[in-house]
Amino acid sequence: MEELIRLYHGDGGKHTALLIRELFYKYFGNEMLLQGLDAGVFHTAEGRLAFTTDSFVIKPLFFPGGDIGKLAVYGTTNDLAVSGAKPLYVSAGFIIEEGFKLDELERIVRSMRVACQETGACIITGDTKVVEKGAVDGIFINTSGIGIVDCAYCHKEVKPGDHIIVTGSIAEHGAAIALERYKIPVKGPFSSDCGSVYNIITQLKPYYSGIKLMKDPTRGGLATALNEISEREGMESNICEHAIPIRREVEGICRLLGLDPLYLACEGRVILVVDPDISSAVLQRIKSCENGMGACIIGSFTGRREEVVYLQTNIGGKRILNPLEGPMLPRIC
Amino acid sequence: MEELIRLYHGDGGKHTALLIRELFYKYFGNEMLLQGLDAGVFHTAEGRLAFTTDSFVIKPLFFPGGDIGKLAVYGTTNDLAVSGAKPLYVSAGFIIEEGFKLDELERIVRSMRVACQETGACIITGDTKVVEKGAVDGIFINTSGIGIVDCAYCHKEVKPGDHIIVTGSIAEHGAAIALERYKIPVKGPFSSDCGSVYNIITQLKPYYSGIKLMKDPTRGGLATALNEISEREGMESNICEHAIPIRREVEGICRLLGLDPLYLACEGRVILVVDPDISSAVLQRIKSCENGMGACIIGSFTGRREEVVYLQTNIGGKRILNPLEGPMLPRIC
Repeated sequence: MEELIRLYHGDGGKHTALLIRELFYKYFGNEMLLQGLDAGVFHTAEGRLAFTTDSFVIKPLFFPGGDIGKLAVYGTTNDLAVSGAKPLYVSAGFIIEEGFKLDELERIVRSMRVACQETGACIITGDTKVVEKGAVDGIFINTSGIGIVDCAYCHKEVKPGDHIIVTGSIAEHGAAIALERYKIPVKGPFSSDCGSVYNIITQLKPYYSGIKLMKDPTRGGLATALNEISEREGMESNICEHAIPIRREVEGICRLLGLDPLYLACEGRVILVVDPDISSAVLQRIKSCENGMGACIIGSFTGRREEVVYLQTNIGGKRILNPLEGPMLPRIC
Repeated sequence: MEELIRLYHGDGGKHTALLIRELFYKYFGNEMLLQGLDAGVFHTAEGRLAFTTDSFVIKPLFFPGGDIGKLAVYGTTNDLAVSGAKPLYVSAGFIIEEGFKLDELERIVRSMRVACQETGACIITGDTKVVEKGAVDGIFINTSGIGIVDCAYCHKEVKPGDHIIVTGSIAEHGAAIALERYKIPVKGPFSSDCGSVYNIITQLKPYYSGIKLMKDPTRGGLATALNEISEREGMESNICEHAIPIRREVEGICRLLGLDPLYLACEGRVILVVDPDISSAVLQRIKSCENGMGACIIGSFTGRREEVVYLQTNIGGKRILNPLEGPMLPRIC
């Protein structure tokens, strides 16, 4: 490993994975952590509880479609939801720069309440630290969350032929942050997909037996999330470029800024790996949800030859889709 | 409230309490949060689980007797322990400045492992964010924790006559940070009391029925913690200055820097409110623990007239001991 922490150690891609494996797993390694899932799951007499944490350092704090508070609640409750858990309790840890405006803090806190109300989670514990001017850039928020895993749901082995569904058009959170940060004018309304995915997942209860796993493609985007799944499952996957839902505005923004939408974060989408026998029924059910109307089957798992993701391109080619490795937008969540 | 966040909003004293009441309680208010305890406690079929969170922004990162990693694990597991809970699971959220040294990160992570091993807790979920140079001062760590509350333990109503015990000499963490920050030379070894209190609390199991409540006097020190208890219980308390255990080095450091040890943080001490019938037995049991040898009964609760803390001074006077209100050492945890 290198001697200094670089920005890419936090981008959610290859270097973050390396840091986690070579440092955190080395010292903290235990069965639950080593599963490398979005939440640690432990057993109680009540059933399985999921426990997850996320720190939010997003810049700017307010963006089209949300703010750091909304993101902090949904980021954590979505990690619980994709673990098959109903979000119950959330903690809120604030680190605030001296001189931060109280009315902005109030806006953020109000958003957190609204997001909690939507997911049904309660903030039951918290912490506030204030540091001197210059020691933190505005405000950072950590949320941790506890949820109860639906007894009908568990991660299952992915098999060749399993379909890959994404619940809506991708890269909108990343694109919204880029727009706001670089002050790019766009025609018409455009906003982050930041939102809860719990409502979609509860609708899928009748299909839990055929859902192999779920993951939200946040930092590192769709490409990185698919690579993580392929690697963990020891399985090759194949996705079709033309099947991936991307809004025209996002394509335009990405072309303008030289960004690849496949690596840009979503904050309100889920990737599902589903038994092909029920994938169209699952797709229809997702499409019946307000935030699932843009859902698509984008590809499938094809075999155990390699742990890579192949992209069938629009011009008829086929290429390996690597996890995020180069520089991307920092501080998008 | 004021319009800008000030450093004192994070000092754990009067202004932090105001911010919590007027902002966080206003928006997040629910029964568990409003209890204002060190951990939120919720019921499961397994029993009561405690959930707590803390962000650590201490400066310097390495200090005599510990570092930010050790502090981050003990800070959170101690909050569980004083809630009567056995620490089980901990989350670790790192926010790291670009350019931070990897070997320092490894030292910190190693300390966290050692602290986890001592308390028996496992880190089962985590998150790493890296922000650009200047956006955070080095490294901040959030830990959240889940523990199972001993079914024999609960907070009980404090009654007039109940004794107040502190498990060891106070203000050593705050004094160690001040020493390190201002590079003050002292003769002989002197270090923070940063450590686990769980070992002491488990030793007190036979006395749980007579222990009314426990609290660790961290930010804001002994004076602020006692005020919080007095206020929550609607009860006057009386402590004797000469009974409060303070090491001579700490008194010296405080005199030199103009600090009041009653307001300086401990990171390995507990305040217990105990039925007077068993207080000497509890004291003896605490004194039999390695980190409890300096335990003392420092005062008692006296009645329902006022919600204040009185200090019987060494020169025979009596004065009100307010919660922390003025400027103190920032970033001590």
